[in-house]
Amino acid sequence: MSRYPAPDINDLPEDIKAKVLEVQEKAGFVPNVFLALARRPAEWRAFFAYHDALMLKEEGSLTKGDREMIVTTTSAANQCLYCVVAHGAILRIHEKKPLVADQVAVNHRKADITPRQKAMLDFAMKVCQRSHEINDDDFPPLHAHGFSDEDIWDIAAITAFFGLSNRMASFSNMQPNPEFYLMGRVPRAKPAA
Amino acid sequence: MSRYPAPDINDLPEDIKAKVLEVQEKAGFVPNVFLALARRPAEWRAFFAYHDALMLKEEGSLTKGDREMIVTTTSAANQCLYCVVAHGAILRIHEKKPLVADQVAVNHRKADITPRQKAMLDFAMKVCQRSHEINDDDFPPLHAHGFSDEDIWDIAAITAFFGLSNRMASFSNMQPNPEFYLMGRVPRAKPAA
Amino acid sequence: MSRYPAPDINDLPEDIKAKVLEVQEKAGFVPNVFLALARRPAEWRAFFAYHDALMLKEEGSLTKGDREMIVTTTSAANQCLYCVVAHGAILRIHEKKPLVADQVAVNHRKADITPRQKAMLDFAMKVCQRSHEINDDDFPPLHAHGFSDEDIWDIAAITAFFGLSNRMASFSNMQPNPEFYLMGRVPRAKPAA
Amino acid sequence: MSRYPAPDINDLPEDIKAKVLEVQEKAGFVPNVFLALARRPAEWRAFFAYHDALMLKEEGSLTKGDREMIVTTTSAANQCLYCVVAHGAILRIHEKKPLVADQVAVNHRKADITPRQKAMLDFAMKVCQRSHEINDDDFPPLHAHGFSDEDIWDIAAITAFFGLSNRMASFSNMQPNPEFYLMGRVPRAKPAA
Amino acid sequence: MSRYPAPDINDLPEDIKAKVLEVQEKAGFVPNVFLALARRPAEWRAFFAYHDALMLKEEGSLTKGDREMIVTTTSAANQCLYCVVAHGAILRIHEKKPLVADQVAVNHRKADITPRQKAMLDFAMKVCQRSHEINDDDFPPLHAHGFSDEDIWDIAAITAFFGLSNRMASFSNMQPNPEFYLMGRVPRAKPAA
Amino acid sequence: MSRYPAPDINDLPEDIKAKVLEVQEKAGFVPNVFLALARRPAEWRAFFAYHDALMLKEEGSLTKGDREMIVTTTSAANQCLYCVVAHGAILRIHEKKPLVADQVAVNHRKADITPRQKAMLDFAMKVCQRSHEINDDDFPPLHAHGFSDEDIWDIAAITAFFGLSNRMASFSNMQPNPEFYLMGRVPRAKPAA
Repeated sequence: MSRYPAPDINDLPEDIKAKVLEVQEKAGFVPNVFLALARRPAEWRAFFAYHDALMLKEEGSLTKGDREMIVTTTSAANQCLYCVVAHGAILRIHEKKPLVADQVAVNHRKADITPRQKAMLDFAMKVCQRSHEINDDDFPPLHAHGFSDEDIWDIAAITAFFGLSNRMASFSNMQPNPEFYLMGRVPRAKPAA
Repeated sequence: MSRYPAPDINDLPEDIKAKVLEVQEKAGFVPNVFLALARRPAEWRAFFAYHDALMLKEEGSLTKGDREMIVTTTSAANQCLYCVVAHGAILRIHEKKPLVADQVAVNHRKADITPRQKAMLDFAMKVCQRSHEINDDDFPPLHAHGFSDEDIWDIAAITAFFGLSNRMASFSNMQPNPEFYLMGRVPRAKPAA
Repeated sequence: MSRYPAPDINDLPEDIKAKVLEVQEKAGFVPNVFLALARRPAEWRAFFAYHDALMLKEEGSLTKGDREMIVTTTSAANQCLYCVVAHGAILRIHEKKPLVADQVAVNHRKADITPRQKAMLDFAMKVCQRSHEINDDDFPPLHAHGFSDEDIWDIAAITAFFGLSNRMASFSNMQPNPEFYLMGRVPRAKPAA
Repeated sequence: MSRYPAPDINDLPEDIKAKVLEVQEKAGFVPNVFLALARRPAEWRAFFAYHDALMLKEEGSLTKGDREMIVTTTSAANQCLYCVVAHGAILRIHEKKPLVADQVAVNHRKADITPRQKAMLDFAMKVCQRSHEINDDDFPPLHAHGFSDEDIWDIAAITAFFGLSNRMASFSNMQPNPEFYLMGRVPRAKPAA
Repeated sequence: MSRYPAPDINDLPEDIKAKVLEVQEKAGFVPNVFLALARRPAEWRAFFAYHDALMLKEEGSLTKGDREMIVTTTSAANQCLYCVVAHGAILRIHEKKPLVADQVAVNHRKADITPRQKAMLDFAMKVCQRSHEINDDDFPPLHAHGFSDEDIWDIAAITAFFGLSNRMASFSNMQPNPEFYLMGRVPRAKPAA
Repeated sequence: MSRYPAPDINDLPEDIKAKVLEVQEKAGFVPNVFLALARRPAEWRAFFAYHDALMLKEEGSLTKGDREMIVTTTSAANQCLYCVVAHGAILRIHEKKPLVADQVAVNHRKADITPRQKAMLDFAMKVCQRSHEINDDDFPPLHAHGFSDEDIWDIAAITAFFGLSNRMASFSNMQPNPEFYLMGRVPRAKPAA
């Protein structure tokens, strides 16, 4: 991150600073993406507005775990270190499955997930790697698992948005915070697995 | 666009409706992307905020023609019909070169553009297709053509953002307005967008 | 075209010169391929004999528009600037559809063409990119659209021949004449679309 | 070859029949390509006119062995059974090296050939697989091995022409004559074709 | 692992049983690969003889951490869940770096490792994905980092051997033991294997 | 083989020397792989133990010809000169078909082999190139041709093992003995084909 140094938190515009402090309060640390992108406030605001519209929405059948699973899987296909590690951590927490992030990052076909989630990830991978080949035949298999057309839009949009995020993170050499690597692997009360 | 029908312009939230009408006033028609994405207002607002932050900014050495050239070239690599045709039109207008959009869409290496623009597009294509391989060695050739690190961020961010746009357009079967195909090809055409 | 300069029209052998003048009379200009290849008369004669056998034949169900559509689509896959622009122009004229060439060049799956034409182009793309995988299973879907085995030979042969043409044009840096870019976009009588 | 049956030799047009008989006289058998393509006389005439212009020409520094080596190597990349076996046979004879055809077909980088031939094949493979990336930088390494620009045109044209041939042979399921497999492997075999 | 059920430990041949019990004693559990392959004793013996010859040897400059890093990186390229998780665990322990396995599995170019290790992994990836392109030019960059020709053989052989292992594990649906996922991530964990 | 010189046969450990002499007695020459790998006795012993467990086993429905056909086909996909030439020779002998090795090496889809063998090779190619995509759907087509689950393990294991062998041979520049090229092409009694 030396070529594109992150700004000091105290130099941020007030709205960005407030959001960063809120995240810090909640997570216990500031995920690097919040500071790395803040050197360009207008892009930062659009990035997180888009992120929140897709990842924090209440409507639809995609759980928060599903959403993070899409991010982790497609970010691994794009070989984005930041997103695999950071979103893999959040995935483990939402799914309450300490092993799932490593599984989908290496090969979602072998992961211990539901057939519905596998169909979801197969489609996400097509959006990620061959979006120009998507056609009407891609929809019925998703409908068969209970995904509505709006859910399918969500899958596509999350994949597309994190394709943007992956490219920015790899380009700018963004590193995941060390805290993410262990998060969700060791439940607070008792040891995992 | 039948699976994801565009909303009627009169049903849009006021802020979105105002922006759409402004574009219509300027271009003479409403580019389909403005209505196609408007069925999800929160995503629409983030998308165009991001777009404007990257494409309408005044700072840096990238001209508007350079920016549209990046969009046209990488969208062709992603085989996105909407973006190649729509941004190819705007590219022709900004560069005042009726042939350039077809050239970069087919093979930017053979296009009648400057060596500086070729270096810019080579890097954009790497962000588009192999962002995980970007490293420090990619920067000096760009610096040699006068691009600053901030310009390079612009190239990367524009490529990354339109990678998102390409995937959403192909996924949702977005079609370019017929007007775009001819725009900027005949000398008397008036500038749009 | 500086490395392999085109000969002067007056230095051509009589048979080649006659054909070139005939084309010039008909088109209003000499398409660059006619001069670029004429520096090697024996190759020129074979090239155009092959071209005419495939593109000017009267038999079979492939229309001239179909043939040019195959050329434009597969030449785009091979990223051949000359053939996409020159044959895209002829495609527009034969199909009387000003938008179709840009559509098939970017992504034929999204083009406003018939299901029969999409099946034709799917097969042409397989000949172009994975001819070693062609087997008996490729034929029934084409028969279902009314293509005979002879029509299928035509699709394959046109694709194969322009694969040759694409490689020679890219290798020798052949540039499309500026006239091609606009041809078929603006009907003589009234403005297009 | 059942879908596209080869015509009987006695049903061929006189000029084609004469050429076929001449080849039979010289080689001791009729290579299948001569009959397989003869079902379309106009294409046959253009194909062999092109073939002869490239493969039988006297000018330039490419030997007949060099030419056949280009064909064998690039046909293997295209996985064309007919051309690898038939032209591999002719290559063995011209080079008087019984092992060379198998070597270049599997991996020309490991073949027992000259550095000049390796450079020639590297370029041929680029024409075969990535012709859109050819640029001025490809020429000096070939010049350094004594290839003139006309020789380089020969390499490109031979590669391009057999790319056509490969696609037609794979598409039509053309099988090499059994005689080709052993030809040039045993010292006493007499030269063919 | 239902299609190819692992044998019961008590049904194993004595030599295999002894080795399995030894591993269990040391690691605290039996890694699944030891039982999954034991259904074929002759293959089991050859597999672990090969494994030990490469991974337990004392000679050369490759540390145990280096060796496991090669395994983790190339297994991720082959998308082998078992090997990435199991060898990633051993890598963390040997390198005493809790974050390194996730880093090299996602993108070794962004990992916090030495330039010598990056050169080692670049070469391993070439052996993994493009071994037919290896030539003399690949050696000097490795020599420059202090690798001898014997070390380079080690890198190649480890990569080649785990390419075998990856294919068998993916084919037979081998799952990593849950214990591996956390191993080496928390400081107090005791070394295994 | 200059970088990694093969040891003199008289310097080999006794067990290796005995095996090499046995092979020499049987084949009339020492295949280069036996000496090339012998510079590392422990790896040599594991390699040939693995080889023999897979290639010399008596159980199962795979014939020796089937096994060598898998090796030749997948080694060609990996562009390994040594294995294609050496195992192609053994394939010709076991199948008593002088043409089959060249056919499967170039394109197994066009080879004169049984539908059962084509299904076997299709699966072997998936193990070779996309093992991470193997799933339950790959088994029924093989069962339909009479392959048991144990046979399918054999196909996978042979492919995986020779993937190792291919990488070591290409990396170390191992050359096939000249004797292999002609072996099985000319039956001792009468000339082939």
